[in-house]
Amino acid sequence: MRAVELIERKRDGGALSAEEIDHLVQGYVKGEIPDYQMAALCMAIVWRGMTAKETAALTASMVASGERLDLSRFGRVVDKHSTGGVGDKTTLVVAPLVAACGLPVAKMSGRGLGFSGGTLDKLESIAGYRVDLGTAEFLAQLERVGIVVTGQTKELAPADGLLYALRDATGTVPAIPLIASSIMSKKIAAGANAVVLDVKVGSGAFMKDRRSASVLARTMVAIGEAHGLGVTCELTDMEQPLGRAVGNALEVAEAIAALRGEGPADLTELALVAGAEMLVRGRRARDARAGRKRVEAALRDGSGLAKLRELVSAQGGDARVVDDPARLPRAPRVETLRAPRTAYVAAIAADRVGIASVHLGAGREKKGDPIDHRTGVVLHAKVGDSVERGQPFAEVHVAGRPEDAAAIDEVRTAFRWSARRVAKRRLFLGRVAGR
Amino acid sequence: MRAVELIERKRDGGALSAEEIDHLVQGYVKGEIPDYQMAALCMAIVWRGMTAKETAALTASMVASGERLDLSRFGRVVDKHSTGGVGDKTTLVVAPLVAACGLPVAKMSGRGLGFSGGTLDKLESIAGYRVDLGTAEFLAQLERVGIVVTGQTKELAPADGLLYALRDATGTVPAIPLIASSIMSKKIAAGANAVVLDVKVGSGAFMKDRRSASVLARTMVAIGEAHGLGVTCELTDMEQPLGRAVGNALEVAEAIAALRGEGPADLTELALVAGAEMLVRGRRARDARAGRKRVEAALRDGSGLAKLRELVSAQGGDARVVDDPARLPRAPRVETLRAPRTAYVAAIAADRVGIASVHLGAGREKKGDPIDHRTGVVLHAKVGDSVERGQPFAEVHVAGRPEDAAAIDEVRTAFRWSARRVAKRRLFLGRVAGR
Repeated sequence: MRAVELIERKRDGGALSAEEIDHLVQGYVKGEIPDYQMAALCMAIVWRGMTAKETAALTASMVASGERLDLSRFGRVVDKHSTGGVGDKTTLVVAPLVAACGLPVAKMSGRGLGFSGGTLDKLESIAGYRVDLGTAEFLAQLERVGIVVTGQTKELAPADGLLYALRDATGTVPAIPLIASSIMSKKIAAGANAVVLDVKVGSGAFMKDRRSASVLARTMVAIGEAHGLGVTCELTDMEQPLGRAVGNALEVAEAIAALRGEGPADLTELALVAGAEMLVRGRRARDARAGRKRVEAALRDGSGLAKLRELVSAQGGDARVVDDPARLPRAPRVETLRAPRTAYVAAIAADRVGIASVHLGAGREKKGDPIDHRTGVVLHAKVGDSVERGQPFAEVHVAGRPEDAAAIDEVRTAFRWSARRVAKRRLFLGRVAGR
Repeated sequence: MRAVELIERKRDGGALSAEEIDHLVQGYVKGEIPDYQMAALCMAIVWRGMTAKETAALTASMVASGERLDLSRFGRVVDKHSTGGVGDKTTLVVAPLVAACGLPVAKMSGRGLGFSGGTLDKLESIAGYRVDLGTAEFLAQLERVGIVVTGQTKELAPADGLLYALRDATGTVPAIPLIASSIMSKKIAAGANAVVLDVKVGSGAFMKDRRSASVLARTMVAIGEAHGLGVTCELTDMEQPLGRAVGNALEVAEAIAALRGEGPADLTELALVAGAEMLVRGRRARDARAGRKRVEAALRDGSGLAKLRELVSAQGGDARVVDDPARLPRAPRVETLRAPRTAYVAAIAADRVGIASVHLGAGREKKGDPIDHRTGVVLHAKVGDSVERGQPFAEVHVAGRPEDAAAIDEVRTAFRWSARRVAKRRLFLGRVAGR
C-alpha cells in the first residue's frame, strides 16, 4: 500500500477503504507516514470530502491509536460536547445538574482558541482547580463524586492530537469529516455510551450556516451509529453570544448564577434541554419531558449547585467561589458602554465580541498563549432588547493593556441598532438524533 | 506573513502576491517553511490552480533560488524540451542537426520515470558517455563543440528539485502551473534566450487531451513572455509511440538512423520542424521555410551525424557507435510478434508500450531504480499500416527476466486491429507561440 497512491485516489475524488485509512493513521502515529503526505491528504479531504464509511473508519482508526476508557462499571455514561462558541459556558451548568440527578458525568474538555472559549480555561479561573487528572484519578473521582471535568489525557486518541496540530498548521481544519471524526474519536475513546452534542451555528461558531452545521451533525450521528454510540445533536444559534458573559471568570460567575436559578434565559434553557436529553440517553428518564422535570428539580433544590461545589473541591479548586463569586479574579477596570440613543439591538456580532475578548487577553490567538482570566465582556442587552439612550448596553472588563481601547471599540461596533422593534433570536435551530 | 494564512487563501481560491510566493519558496529552500506546509499548499494549487501572474512569480522564485547561467557570450542560445512520451528520442536527432547549422545547443536533459523515457538514460546506452558535467565543463564544451547534452546541475533552480521531489511523494504532480513553472524555471536558469517546446498529447503522455495540453502550452508561453524568453510550443500526438523504437539503446540506434536519413517519417518530420523553429528563434533563419532548408541540408550532407559524433566523443562516449550502431548493447533475445490475420493497425496504446518497456527493464518505476539499456520494443507497423497474416508487427527485446512474458503480452495487447482501412495519425496537433 503506497501512501502516495492513496493520496492520489483521494485527490481524484475516490474513496479509501477502512484498511487503507488505518494504514495511513497508524503509520502516521508511528512516524512511518511523514507529515507532508498526511498534510497533502488532509488538503485533498478538504477538497473532496469523505464518505460516511470513510469517516467512520477514520474515527475508528483514531480511537484505535490509543487507549479506550472502560467506564462500564459506572453503568451508562453520557458525554456532552459543544463545537464551541462565544460565551458558551453550558458545560459548567449542565454537568453538575445531570450529575446531581445521579447520572455520572465524565467530561474531557478543551481549551479556547481564536474567538472560541474553552471550558478548561474557564475552570482555571477558580484558584487551584486542576485540569490535568491522570486516568486513575479520573476514574477514582468519577466513582467518588460522580462528576469529573478535566483535560483530555494524552493516551486517548493520540492520532487526533497529532492530526489536529498538523491541520492547524496546514490550513486543513475546515473539513467536516475531519472535524466530525476528531470530536467523535475523543468521545468514543473516553468511554461514553452516548453523547449530547451542541453544534453552534453563526458568526461566532465554526459553522457559519445551518446547512453545513446540519451536515456536521448528521456526520457525527452517523459516526456514533457506526460505533454503537447514541448521539443527539442540537443545532443552536451563535449569531450572538450565549448568555451575557464572555471571558473566563465572568463566565464562571454566570454559570454559578444559572445554577442558582438566576442565569440568563438562553443559557438556562440550553442547559435544561441538554440535561434532559442526557438523562434520556443515560436511561435515567423515560423521555425529554420527564428528564426536564428532574433537571429543573436539581436546579430548584440547589443540588446542581452543590454538585458544582463538590466538583471544584474534588479537583483542588477553591470551592468558596461557588457561594461567593466575588472571590473570582476581577479585572482592575470596567468600561461601561452606553446607548447613544434609544433603540433596539438588531444584532451582536458574536465573532467580533469573541475577537474583542481575545484582544482583552481573555482568549488566545494561538495554542499555548497565556490568558488573563479576569477580562472579558458582559452584555446588558441582547438582540431584540431595547436600550434607553444613555443606559449601559455592555461592560468591558479590561486589564489596562494597550490593546484595550481597540477591543472596547470592537465590542461597541459589534452591536447593530434599529429604531424599529426587532424579534428575539431563536436559540434552537434543529435537532439530529441517532438511535 | 504567516504560511498557514497563505495556504488558507489558496485553499479558498484566492491568489498570492509575488512577494508571498517568494517568501514561501525561499523559506522552503532554507528549511524555514516545513515540508508539510508546502505539501498542503501544492495540493491546494492542484485544486485551485494559479493565475498567470502567480505562475510567473513562482517561476521567478525558483530561478532566483539558484544560479542562472550566463550564455550571452555565445550569442543567441535556443533550448529544446519535450514534456516526455514513449519513444521520444527527438533531442538526439534535432540537437546535432541544429548545432551543425551553427546555433549553439546547450541542453540539460532528464531521466525517464514511469512510461516516459529520458534522454540521459538513452545517451548512457553509449559506453562512457558522461551526463554529469559541471558548469565549467559545460561552458568549455559549448565553446569548443557547440553542443552539450548533459544532466541538470544542482545549482540551477534548486527549489524546483526540492519541490518536485515533494510533489512526487504527495500526489501533487498534476497541476499545470506547477508543471509549467518547473519546466520553465530550469530553461530560464539554464540561460537560453528562447525555447522550442514539444507538449505531447495522448495516452503515452502526461497530458491526456488536447485541451489540457493547450493550457499547459499557453501557460509556458506566458511564463516565457514574463521572463523575456521566446517560446514556441508544438502540440504533438502521443497516442502511439514516436518512431518505431522504444528502449534506450534501440532509440539511440533509431536516432542515428534518422541522422543518416533512414529514420521513421514521424521522428524525422518532428526533428525538421523543431530544428527549423530553433534556427528561427536563434535568428539563424529568416523563417520556418528557410530554417527547414538548413536543417534538411545538415541531414543530407551528414554534418548532423558528424556533430553527434563530436558530441559523444566530447562527453567521453564511444563515438564508434555513431558509425557502427551494432556496438550498442543488445538484448540477448528478441521475441517477434506476428499478426494472427491480415488487418490494419487501428491503435497502439503508447502508455501500454511504455509500461511494457518499464517491465522489460528499460524504464523505472521510481527514481533511482537501475535500468537495462538493452531491452525494449521495436514496432514494425504503426497506426494505419496493414500487416499480412503471419508477418511481424513488433519485436520485443528481452533480457530474460521473469517479467518478460507479461511484458510481451502487454505489447501484443497494446495493438488494436481493424479489418477496415484506418487513417494514419496526425503528428502535429497545434502550435502556441509567444513573441
